[in-house]
Amino acid sequence: MATPQLAASRRIRVTPYTPCVEALGVSGYSVVNHTILPKGFGRSVEEDYWHLKEHVQIWDVGCQRQVELKGPDAAYLAQLMTPRDLSKARVGQCLYAPLIDEKGGMLNDPIILKRAADRFWFSIADADILLWAKGLAVGMNLDVSIEEPDVSPLAIQGPKSEAVMEAVFGCAIRDIRFFRFAELPFDNHPLVIARSGYSRQGGFEIYLDDSTLGERLWNALWEAGQPFDIAPGSPNLIERIEGGLISCGNEFTRANNPLECGFEKYCALDGSVHYIGLAALQAIHRQGPQNTLFGLIFDGPPCPPCRWLWPVSIGRQQVGQVTSAIWSPRFQANVALGMINTVVWRVNRAVTVTDEQKCPRQGRITGLPM
Amino acid sequence: MATPQLAASRRIRVTPYTPCVEALGVSGYSVVNHTILPKGFGRSVEEDYWHLKEHVQIWDVGCQRQVELKGPDAAYLAQLMTPRDLSKARVGQCLYAPLIDEKGGMLNDPIILKRAADRFWFSIADADILLWAKGLAVGMNLDVSIEEPDVSPLAIQGPKSEAVMEAVFGCAIRDIRFFRFAELPFDNHPLVIARSGYSRQGGFEIYLDDSTLGERLWNALWEAGQPFDIAPGSPNLIERIEGGLISCGNEFTRANNPLECGFEKYCALDGSVHYIGLAALQAIHRQGPQNTLFGLIFDGPPCPPCRWLWPVSIGRQQVGQVTSAIWSPRFQANVALGMINTVVWRVNRAVTVTDEQKCPRQGRITGLPM
Repeated sequence: MATPQLAASRRIRVTPYTPCVEALGVSGYSVVNHTILPKGFGRSVEEDYWHLKEHVQIWDVGCQRQVELKGPDAAYLAQLMTPRDLSKARVGQCLYAPLIDEKGGMLNDPIILKRAADRFWFSIADADILLWAKGLAVGMNLDVSIEEPDVSPLAIQGPKSEAVMEAVFGCAIRDIRFFRFAELPFDNHPLVIARSGYSRQGGFEIYLDDSTLGERLWNALWEAGQPFDIAPGSPNLIERIEGGLISCGNEFTRANNPLECGFEKYCALDGSVHYIGLAALQAIHRQGPQNTLFGLIFDGPPCPPCRWLWPVSIGRQQVGQVTSAIWSPRFQANVALGMINTVVWRVNRAVTVTDEQKCPRQGRITGLPM
Repeated sequence: MATPQLAASRRIRVTPYTPCVEALGVSGYSVVNHTILPKGFGRSVEEDYWHLKEHVQIWDVGCQRQVELKGPDAAYLAQLMTPRDLSKARVGQCLYAPLIDEKGGMLNDPIILKRAADRFWFSIADADILLWAKGLAVGMNLDVSIEEPDVSPLAIQGPKSEAVMEAVFGCAIRDIRFFRFAELPFDNHPLVIARSGYSRQGGFEIYLDDSTLGERLWNALWEAGQPFDIAPGSPNLIERIEGGLISCGNEFTRANNPLECGFEKYCALDGSVHYIGLAALQAIHRQGPQNTLFGLIFDGPPCPPCRWLWPVSIGRQQVGQVTSAIWSPRFQANVALGMINTVVWRVNRAVTVTDEQKCPRQGRITGLPM
């Protein structure tokens, strides 16, 4: 099957960088948060993978929309929404955090930016968390403003990121620690810049809060990146699977809880933190989570994209499912992420995965990152 | 620019009919509710338009996901979510209804199916209304279950719809009135079938509640449709603009209120109905809504897809914007929907629209449907 094309409309929003990615020949899109996410520029995912690991890429991740909580009850609501203890979070900190519902089901895995004591940005994956936050606030009559500000992140990722960023923002960029943010000026306009990003290759995310500056910002980074072999890119499926970076809607849905997604270290379970879903999570924790996020390497020719759950079995018994998969040039085998019954999870254990062509393939469980 | 391709993943869900639309050569997709919506089958939008108006089409609208409210507080929550008075709604009725937030901002325009006194399906456009409903229910501690059931609508649309449906479901299909639903058996499995759909050409929506029956249902309708020149199709942009059918995310966002979207007849404003946003809506109503949904016919060559707001002006003053636009073969001109200042809205009034190539074009306001 040829990959079908994406129909354009206002409903699927462009970003401030869209003219730039179009000028560079964007060849594939995904849709995240009702916004286009460029996914390819005519090169293969493998070529992008090697380039990302060696050089530097500029990614239009304007689809990482912000849900801003602001006002007297902002901190209270932010804490209600996540099992991660936010009480010691400092302004300037980025906190990777699971969001769960009253049953402990995963809703999202944003990075929370603490902008001020009474102002938080939830930099969200694909779901209308704004509606969840607003529903809670209206239902509980909280004094908090909840909006989606004009903020469109731009990511610089790869080992040469710091050099490119320094060329545009100066040496202050070096002082930004991992998962911290600072405000640095661009054209006399202060921009929130975090050392973060959806890869394991290092880099930064720039939270542009004025769409009219989008093309200028992109072009400044693009030009500064020329000596470093900068290329347009996107979150890379090979790199993220090998790196064990999960994706909302792929690795987890509301049917999963944070304990099986590897978030235990971000779940306050002793009752000292008040959040929605605490009792449900404590009950799951007492029993032990049934499933575990796992990595998998499996044989056969390059697999097709994983569009639905592929069963994973041991003998005749289904014990789990693959949620994302692709061919890895580094392993010369297919790599995957998925969920597996905790009782059978063991690194190197042999399993069988059945892809959407009903083709059974032999594999073994890996640690993460691979 | 060539239209970029859509990258496949589990996050963007397939439907029970995906194998059927792929076998028929689907050539374009959109994404609605994290689910693919087939948008083309190799023919032009114009060819699909004429075919829809003369024959019958089968549409995979599995992306019209249901938010099910069930339990003692289901009716209370359903009413909280919409200004439309649901008190007299009967079981078996479909109710087109705006959903608004506490400020009167539009969140969605579902069809609400009253399945039972304590059970409602919200057949939603593109937004995670489930999260809004859950947020309210958790915040207010309501006794209601809120889930997305395994329901994937399939639409049969066009003047020959009834004949095709009768061939599969028997003459009972004729007894289903407009915006009513009944349960009719298919392979001994009762299916909710409504006389409704996202076109002005008549037709039905089948709420398949068992994904494993998807291909059988599609194939039965496909075979029954052969004598009637059935074709695969999708909501048609020309037909929906001419018909004045609005689209969530295109014609309206949270920045719009239901009074400017043409929903006044579905807004109980006298205070007799208790819902979120009532006070805000009453205030807007007292002042009169600033904007009005309008139709537009404008000149020049076939316009590109409307990916962001195109300014509409009279003289040098911007008075509105276009939200959706396409070439109409019937009018031999471009047709559009948009929002315009209420004070200047008048059928036949001349305006100028500036498309994304910055090209000014002359147009005139039309009534709706055109």
